[in-house]
Amino acid sequence: MDKAVLVVGSIALDTVYTPYGRREEMPGGSGLYFSAAASFWAPVRVVGVVGEDFPTDVLDPLRERGVDFSGLQVASGRTFRWVGEYGEDPDMRRTLDTQLNVFQDFCPELPPIYSDTPFVFLANIDPELQLRVLEQIEGRRFTACDTMDFWIEGKRKELSEMFSRVDMVVLNQEEARTLSGRRNLVEAAEVIAGMGPRWVLVKKGEHGAMAFCGGRVFLLPAFPVREVVDPTGAGDTFAGGVMGYLAHAGEVSDCTLRRAMAYGTVLASFCVERFGLEGITNLVRSEVEARFEALREMGRF
Amino acid sequence: MDKAVLVVGSIALDTVYTPYGRREEMPGGSGLYFSAAASFWAPVRVVGVVGEDFPTDVLDPLRERGVDFSGLQVASGRTFRWVGEYGEDPDMRRTLDTQLNVFQDFCPELPPIYSDTPFVFLANIDPELQLRVLEQIEGRRFTACDTMDFWIEGKRKELSEMFSRVDMVVLNQEEARTLSGRRNLVEAAEVIAGMGPRWVLVKKGEHGAMAFCGGRVFLLPAFPVREVVDPTGAGDTFAGGVMGYLAHAGEVSDCTLRRAMAYGTVLASFCVERFGLEGITNLVRSEVEARFEALREMGRF
Repeated sequence: MDKAVLVVGSIALDTVYTPYGRREEMPGGSGLYFSAAASFWAPVRVVGVVGEDFPTDVLDPLRERGVDFSGLQVASGRTFRWVGEYGEDPDMRRTLDTQLNVFQDFCPELPPIYSDTPFVFLANIDPELQLRVLEQIEGRRFTACDTMDFWIEGKRKELSEMFSRVDMVVLNQEEARTLSGRRNLVEAAEVIAGMGPRWVLVKKGEHGAMAFCGGRVFLLPAFPVREVVDPTGAGDTFAGGVMGYLAHAGEVSDCTLRRAMAYGTVLASFCVERFGLEGITNLVRSEVEARFEALREMGRF
Repeated sequence: MDKAVLVVGSIALDTVYTPYGRREEMPGGSGLYFSAAASFWAPVRVVGVVGEDFPTDVLDPLRERGVDFSGLQVASGRTFRWVGEYGEDPDMRRTLDTQLNVFQDFCPELPPIYSDTPFVFLANIDPELQLRVLEQIEGRRFTACDTMDFWIEGKRKELSEMFSRVDMVVLNQEEARTLSGRRNLVEAAEVIAGMGPRWVLVKKGEHGAMAFCGGRVFLLPAFPVREVVDPTGAGDTFAGGVMGYLAHAGEVSDCTLRRAMAYGTVLASFCVERFGLEGITNLVRSEVEARFEALREMGRF
């Protein structure tokens, strides 16, 4: 388990309405999307919480792919639920209902065997909890985090503390702008890098992603898909692909990060083509490799 | 003049307000931005109209770079004027005033020596005028056009006729969506290709551009710039770079079009960094080549 990845994040039951149909209470949340993606390349350890009502057998396909759920707490009460709607424009998401339930009082406690995990991803949760997780992983070698507008506005101090202790941040372009106070993404990334992280990854949805490191920039278009059935989890899938590949490579360099981001966008493209986790759990490695090569070919000049 | 490019488009006096300052009555319009960009690679012939008040000496720097203005009419009356404002978000443009003036009654008459121009670009003007120009260029080998929402909504029939007679269309993502009735750009491009053109180029502003041809896709991120001083003319500069390079190459293939688009986005990046035409007229070839190589390097994985 030398190259394992640990993720702390939400585990949810998602209900979505999209122009392609409606699905009720699908397993989701950043923790599961990330794990499904990262498990293509590395053993994954999950820290999270579900309620007693969570159908844990839905985790079996992930277990079979090397995802370890011994850090998953089962708390008394109901699982986190989210209900959302997408219009014709998949970037336009409307949250119809959020019930935090057991996630409200989540306090991450890591199994001792997790404390040597080299690659760590702190998905979008309260920055105080992200810090609490960090303190329990003495053996970590590379740490990345995500966040969201809610924490940028509400817990700025804790967020700054957390950013000063991670190697990489992954956030979407609106979050990067809010956090930095700069509209221009080159400037925004510089401001964020000034807060501590060596690598800043900016997700732009259907327009791809950018990475910034020490004045160097990497530009990656998104893999174009014809039908965006359900965009839920695409960003966490991207992050899972990035971290899983980095763990597999065993080192973080310009070269490995670029390949990792390309794998991330490829997995995200499969993710949005189906509802929930279906797009990435029903996927074989050769399909991923084929889109990776196709993406490279589509960008060549 | 075997590899010349002809452009028919507007020639204007633009007044812009941006967060970086204000400029009054700068020479602009699609015809001039296109010419300035295309002249890096090929002799350019301009068809357009100005009023008696147009300061024609501002065209001297373009003349020196091989732009032929013998197709420029000087009509009695005032030159086309446009006044626009940009906010912190350079994509948010607000038109404050438009005075068509002599452009209102523009009727393109080409000098006979233009009739053998091999590469032709019909910038955004009334599709009836675009068709009128086409009829006067018997020797054309490759024709491309732009358009805008105004004609998509108001002159659909003429636009369809024009699209059935060109080899390539260049339009922005909103126009592609309006024209095709599809939000997804892969689908939108297919619908547009079904109207006739072999190549469909979709401009996405700061997010780059895509090209579609016979099921093949090319993805190009935009060259990232720190300061977008004045976005006016970026799209026409892109088109000018594309057509100029294609004319220089002498043939249109996947390979030459990809390089042409990369040069187009590089020129557009220089364009937006200064007011009006300043960014591309005060530019030397080595600066263009350096950004071209940098763009390639930024996208490598």
